[in-house]
Amino acid sequence: MRATVIHGKRDVRLEEVAQPRLSTGGDAIVRVVASCVCGSDLWPYRGVTPTDHPHRIGHEFVGIVEEVGPDVVTVKPGDFVIAPFYDCDMTCVNCLNGVSTSCLNGGWWGADDRLGGFADGGQGEFVRVPHADGSLVATPGKPDASLIPGLLSLADVMGTGHHAAVSAGVTVGSTVVVVGDGAVGLCAVIAAKRLGASRIVSMSRHPQRQALAREFGATDVVEERGDEGVARIKAMFDGVGADCVLECVGTSESMDQAIRSTRPGGTVGYVGAPSGGSALPIRPLFNSNIGVNGGVAPVRNYVQELLSEVLSGAIEPGRVFDLELPLAEVAEAYAAMDERRAIKVLLRP
Amino acid sequence: MRATVIHGKRDVRLEEVAQPRLSTGGDAIVRVVASCVCGSDLWPYRGVTPTDHPHRIGHEFVGIVEEVGPDVVTVKPGDFVIAPFYDCDMTCVNCLNGVSTSCLNGGWWGADDRLGGFADGGQGEFVRVPHADGSLVATPGKPDASLIPGLLSLADVMGTGHHAAVSAGVTVGSTVVVVGDGAVGLCAVIAAKRLGASRIVSMSRHPQRQALAREFGATDVVEERGDEGVARIKAMFDGVGADCVLECVGTSESMDQAIRSTRPGGTVGYVGAPSGGSALPIRPLFNSNIGVNGGVAPVRNYVQELLSEVLSGAIEPGRVFDLELPLAEVAEAYAAMDERRAIKVLLRP
Repeated sequence: MRATVIHGKRDVRLEEVAQPRLSTGGDAIVRVVASCVCGSDLWPYRGVTPTDHPHRIGHEFVGIVEEVGPDVVTVKPGDFVIAPFYDCDMTCVNCLNGVSTSCLNGGWWGADDRLGGFADGGQGEFVRVPHADGSLVATPGKPDASLIPGLLSLADVMGTGHHAAVSAGVTVGSTVVVVGDGAVGLCAVIAAKRLGASRIVSMSRHPQRQALAREFGATDVVEERGDEGVARIKAMFDGVGADCVLECVGTSESMDQAIRSTRPGGTVGYVGAPSGGSALPIRPLFNSNIGVNGGVAPVRNYVQELLSEVLSGAIEPGRVFDLELPLAEVAEAYAAMDERRAIKVLLRP
Repeated sequence: MRATVIHGKRDVRLEEVAQPRLSTGGDAIVRVVASCVCGSDLWPYRGVTPTDHPHRIGHEFVGIVEEVGPDVVTVKPGDFVIAPFYDCDMTCVNCLNGVSTSCLNGGWWGADDRLGGFADGGQGEFVRVPHADGSLVATPGKPDASLIPGLLSLADVMGTGHHAAVSAGVTVGSTVVVVGDGAVGLCAVIAAKRLGASRIVSMSRHPQRQALAREFGATDVVEERGDEGVARIKAMFDGVGADCVLECVGTSESMDQAIRSTRPGGTVGYVGAPSGGSALPIRPLFNSNIGVNGGVAPVRNYVQELLSEVLSGAIEPGRVFDLELPLAEVAEAYAAMDERRAIKVLLRP
């Protein structure tokens, strides 16, 4: 089969790789219907994290179950399934506590030491899924083609935006600021609106993303950053800042922006993988009772809750995909996201 | 009148100072009935924070209102009142948001730039209280002498322990670890039990404090620290750690202990003023979705909720005072706490 391999900085290639095979009894082979490029895929692509040797890449996909091992009971061949950006058993204590990203037996796509051998990356034609019963969620019946992007968003960005909002404690009447206008930030706007926020500020300088944020429920847009951005936010919210600030970038600058935009006693919900700055400044957090909650989003725990709203059209997170390409053009997909020509690119094998 | 003045490292003296006078219309003069020494008073006492010039010290007291300004409406001469360890108006947006320590008009006892002039420290005979309507809470009638220690604890340590528990999200059935066996840590045990924790571990090496922790509701005591302490805690809680860890010390070592004792998806509630280590390590927090909430405790917002339980005897935080001295022996009070001969010392003018 064909799958994406990263060789180094700005060098991703679609290559022939071995066809995956069932190997543990509890795994499944899924034929990928749609996958995509993640903002975090851009770090190795840009060389921010080095690529020591060529390896498979991609971790978001939806597809059709082709085969299952004899121990699998929750999905069967022919099912349309959503996979989270990691695999998990959904039976260990961490999964049951709602934190399936800390599954005691789970792992990451594309790793070569996964239960039963290699677990394929998502940017390919097929994926071997360890813990199929835990990892995969089947839709009721085969979804309409128009729903594929929305379903794919449940593999990562919609669940991650939701996690930012949940972690920040967004509830009915909350005032919310979203730092970041990428796919996750835009999904965080959807999540904040869905949870009942009374006012949602999108911090964005990009006209197209501002427009989508407003369609998703943002009531305000702030283009300023740094001290000016903080001043704008404070002026909007009683001079003190917002109840909940959703940090959806992952740099030390964005975290600083988030903390300083939060009112005393408010909460930062963060989901941007920390790519810069290894520490949080404790004094300003302590002095103003600003909480910091979040982390790598346990999206598997949120699939069921969000799935019905995607299927009904109540939320449309699939709109963050503003470019669709055949898998053969995966290199162009990376380039388009790298150059910010696309918010998020959907790939079809 | 007499009041305590710190001159430098291990040098506190009771001295004659000016009698406080009403000056703003909204202030009150309170005759101190009981005050105490705080763990945070030991920092300047030990020279950890330098004392550049002699200044008043002390910030926890209860007393009788002697005089009020013409604008004061909620307390009157003769009332027995509890003051929080700061003053606040309880009408600004932060106070209304439950974070009176961030009062837009409030401040700290012993500061010489406070509204209307000097605001006395608590370790003296009288205190001028700015924002008397906001800061002071009168008890219903004159309390029995036996209740004075418990009422005094609402000025700081009981409210602070409660804040740790609330910030960590302790609720019915939570598993809880308390890092710190000082007065705040012991009050945090009371708070965790009161909020319904199913299991409460006190991390303590001090037999007398262990005993009191158990009487307050601790189900377990762990003496180990560092890696061994973490291993003990994980072994007690499904191999992953506790739901809620209450950090009641304020050193980088205690925060590290707290974070590593928390299960994935769990929360550290911290109230120890950060005295060492200026930063929180974001990667382990992110990877395991461990939240960090808390800060300088807005105890004024908790007085009403806790007062009735102190008055009824349902909770007995006053038992953290294990030494009582006349104000004239304030130097000995500091020494007893410095040398850990006492958990907390109550002073009577």
